[in-house]
Amino acid sequence: MISTRLTGRLGIEAPILCAPMAFATGGRLAAAVTEAGGLGLIGGGYADPAFVEAEFRSAGNTRVGCGFITWRLDTDDRALHAALAHRPAAMMLSFGDPRPYVAAVREAGALLICQVQTRAGAVIAAEAGADIVVAQGSEAGGHGAVRGTMTLVPEVRDTLGTEMLLLAAGGIADGRGLAAALALGADGVLMGSRFWASAEALSHPRHHAAAIAASGDDTIRQRATDIARGYEWPSQYTARVLNNAFVSRWEGRPDEHRAAASAEREAYGAALAAGDPEAVGVFVGEAAGLISDAPTAGEIVRRTVAEAEAILRRGPTLVT
Amino acid sequence: MISTRLTGRLGIEAPILCAPMAFATGGRLAAAVTEAGGLGLIGGGYADPAFVEAEFRSAGNTRVGCGFITWRLDTDDRALHAALAHRPAAMMLSFGDPRPYVAAVREAGALLICQVQTRAGAVIAAEAGADIVVAQGSEAGGHGAVRGTMTLVPEVRDTLGTEMLLLAAGGIADGRGLAAALALGADGVLMGSRFWASAEALSHPRHHAAAIAASGDDTIRQRATDIARGYEWPSQYTARVLNNAFVSRWEGRPDEHRAAASAEREAYGAALAAGDPEAVGVFVGEAAGLISDAPTAGEIVRRTVAEAEAILRRGPTLVT
Ligand SMILES: Cc1cc2nc3c(=O)[nH]c(=O)nc-3n(C[C@H](O)[C@H](O)[C@H](O)COP(=O)(O)O)c2cc1C
Ligand SMILES: Cc1cc2nc3c(=O)[nH]c(=O)nc-3n(C[C@H](O)[C@H](O)[C@H](O)COP(=O)(O)O)c2cc1C
Repeated sequence: MISTRLTGRLGIEAPILCAPMAFATGGRLAAAVTEAGGLGLIGGGYADPAFVEAEFRSAGNTRVGCGFITWRLDTDDRALHAALAHRPAAMMLSFGDPRPYVAAVREAGALLICQVQTRAGAVIAAEAGADIVVAQGSEAGGHGAVRGTMTLVPEVRDTLGTEMLLLAAGGIADGRGLAAALALGADGVLMGSRFWASAEALSHPRHHAAAIAASGDDTIRQRATDIARGYEWPSQYTARVLNNAFVSRWEGRPDEHRAAASAEREAYGAALAAGDPEAVGVFVGEAAGLISDAPTAGEIVRRTVAEAEAILRRGPTLVT
Repeated sequence: MISTRLTGRLGIEAPILCAPMAFATGGRLAAAVTEAGGLGLIGGGYADPAFVEAEFRSAGNTRVGCGFITWRLDTDDRALHAALAHRPAAMMLSFGDPRPYVAAVREAGALLICQVQTRAGAVIAAEAGADIVVAQGSEAGGHGAVRGTMTLVPEVRDTLGTEMLLLAAGGIADGRGLAAALALGADGVLMGSRFWASAEALSHPRHHAAAIAASGDDTIRQRATDIARGYEWPSQYTARVLNNAFVSRWEGRPDEHRAAASAEREAYGAALAAGDPEAVGVFVGEAAGLISDAPTAGEIVRRTVAEAEAILRRGPTLVT
């Protein structure tokens, strides 16, 4: 077991959270991570109340949290309230201004987790009253920004001080990443891509196979996936996916893509459902190069902890 | 002291190399890092033989290495041979195909260090016969590419196997970064930005002051600095600098910049010499957010080692 202030505060056994990945972290995956000793966060994503209800049901009585894409709540926050009615252990807000939602999260007794991509975002999160800040580096799968995990984590630590509970996210997929995050000053990690390629994830097995075959060299930050789906993401965020035929097809042609997107939306949805790994965005991070299988979430937690334990135990032997 | 296979192989006391930074790592800085227990590499940069001669002279009898921007050697490799005549401990090649230069490096008895930015580059470096591979993440100051340090280091380790000597570079500026790099599977680190802001560096104190005031949020990868100086860098490499008035002025206008650059070259050179931190590129990485002073290189090595030792010693206390 690895004990940090995070495991103490959350009452968990491994300092590992499963990221609230839109369309990937359902109730089953979130519950499996909690049952293995971490904490799973249901991916509330684009804030569909019906999805949130269904996934809390499939988490059953297991203690889980949830997370939303913050800017989506600004037009309709019913899904947030639906989630909070389930008394989640924690609510993670990412990609937008968390301040309008802090009171509701507190009232529901959930810990507030804010994911940030910059030093400036970390300052806002702390001022908003975040209980836990996640520093997300550009290596991450899915939406994110430009700072690297290696510098963002220690800079956020220095900025927020030693008291703040801090998680590292972006490129962490094994015990090496967990041990490195702890060395950088984090109290634990939030892993997305690694759990995305698991037996319990809602993501398609054909997408897992494509990621397993890929190197981190084969991923790219882009906007074509948002244009295809008609999501109006703020311009500072791009999405990391596999650099496949779909991405190449639209690269450098956002205006043409915007003009074509609504006519193609149905076909995009069908290719997504079929799991075609070349015709749609495959959301996974640079950690694709560290992923060679899609085991159960429990197995992922156990492996990650065991590997990190060995690295942490070895530490003093390097000091002579 | 921190002992790894790297310190054993190089016969040094700290697993820390000072990057061969063009226009920044002269003989004095390289020698100071070696004298503090690491190994300094003179920045041969764009391969000017006269500069190389002068800087080896100022390193005196201290054992140092050297490094070049590989694609520059393809048109004129006299500076490489001038450097090798000084019997450097190691020769680092970065940004280009190292293969044409391997035989000369070997003949001079220098260890061959290849810096790579991708998994694919690491495979080429190993095939070329590199003694040491440096995995450079996008956080790095100066030229580099897109992969983050957090994933590139463990992926290169898995790709090249346990025997290869591997250094992490990009965003490492203190003992947290060194300890994290060792956790990720590296045998040591190559630090640039941290030594760039040191008493012995050739970089301008006004540039140091600008970097000290900056966050990592304030750096950017861009090409305007290459256009201004007339360097024809291969398109996969961009340079990380402070995002200042010079960068903003030309952002999104490379063609206009190219048209204006030769007329402005003299003024650019004058602003560089004056240390104006807004009129030219200030080459520093995201680690700017971790840098708050410009001490001697020896002080940097001592602090980094002491902080990493404390982190490594603490490791087993987290395992319960
Ligand atoms: C498939 C996928 C979907 C994601 N969806 C969301 C999301 O809806 N909301 C969110 O805050 N973060 C989302 N993320 C980002 C994660 O919160 C996290 O920062 C990231 O996965 C960490 O990096 P890693 O993928 O390298 O582990 C997503 C990531 C992936 C891989
Ligand atoms: C001012 C500056 C100049 C650099 N010049 C070179 C160079 O000439 N050749 C080279 O191989 N790398 C060069 N680099 C990159 C370094 O080799 C190294 O990868 C980088 O500094 C590591 O990241 P860090 O700056 O975050 O420590 C330079 C870096 C800086 C900051």
